Amino acid sequence: MPRLWTETIEEHRRAVHDATLDAFAAQLAEHGLASVTMSQLAAAAGIGRATLYKYFPDVESVLVAWHERQITRHLHLLEQARDAADGPGARLEAVLSAFAQIQHAHQGSDLPVAMLHRGRHVTEARQQLHVLVSDLITACAASGDIRPGVPAGELASYCLHALSAAGGIPSRAAVRRLVAVTLAGLRPETPR
Amino acid sequence: MPRLWTETIEEHRRAVHDATLDAFAAQLAEHGLASVTMSQLAAAAGIGRATLYKYFPDVESVLVAWHERQITRHLHLLEQARDAADGPGARLEAVLSAFAQIQHAHQGSDLPVAMLHRGRHVTEARQQLHVLVSDLITACAASGDIRPGVPAGELASYCLHALSAAGGIPSRAAVRRLVAVTLAGLRPETPR
Repeated sequence: MPRLWTETIEEHRRAVHDATLDAFAAQLAEHGLASVTMSQLAAAAGIGRATLYKYFPDVESVLVAWHERQITRHLHLLEQARDAADGPGARLEAVLSAFAQIQHAHQGSDLPVAMLHRGRHVTEARQQLHVLVSDLITACAASGDIRPGVPAGELASYCLHALSAAGGIPSRAAVRRLVAVTLAGLRPETPR
Repeated sequence: MPRLWTETIEEHRRAVHDATLDAFAAQLAEHGLASVTMSQLAAAAGIGRATLYKYFPDVESVLVAWHERQITRHLHLLEQARDAADGPGARLEAVLSAFAQIQHAHQGSDLPVAMLHRGRHVTEARQQLHVLVSDLITACAASGDIRPGVPAGELASYCLHALSAAGGIPSRAAVRRLVAVTLAGLRPETPR
């Protein structure tokens, strides 16, 4: 890591913060949470231990900050997926696919998921995600592509729960099938 | 509770066990987990505290035993729902409806869900449930009522995850809509 020669306290704080979370992410991916220590984090981030302790009292506080950054990044990814697609149907499919892929990519870690998911930022992110998907479903419904009689909010909950199955799925092909099945549930009933 | 005049030690053990779990269920429903004490449990079960402590060292061990009994009962409910319905399609719908209703009925408690769900009996029950639903989907597929190209096990995971949305749903009507949407995802694609 380059020397921190940023000029203001806020920039310095942010640089230490980012370097610490990057170092944490690398250690987590390579060795798992159980083996992360504050000393290793400081060394990997290229900062002194005293500086690290100034911003984070312990590994758990780094974990929480890193998780908050992950959640924010994932929401941005979903917004980018939405904005890169053309038309309501393609947007909905792009967002649901991206969500399923994120679930799929983050399975099998040793993170204390229950503890992390009690956090306020997770509740807020869930609400934002729910609104994002609800709005896309409402836009699709305007062109008759969504089954009538079910509120968009209920359909959004259905989608997000169904796609959380991607967290226990072995292959990307299976994730694509899951997205197709989930989308099929949204469509209007056709006479058989 | 009637006096325990059962004749064998095993019967006595089972009677104390059942009475304790019934008393626990009543206290849980009325006051929440935080207020359950061993003294109250013994009094409500009509047994001495010494007898209670002979079988359960603390409230947490009662909670785990009660949860294990709940899981077993829920699986039996689903098997009964299956066996009461006629034909593969009706059986699948009956089981998925019953599962969604169970999810819906058990929301909003103060139970330590993450701790309970780490238990071995939960893992086993999940596997049994997954097999039960997979088998029903396979039976439906034989008559062409299930989309081709997706393994039954993947479709079962999709169903069970989608229906877990019933845990956050306010009304029984919304639960019925969720079941209909989830079932629609299973059907073969029809030309639009």
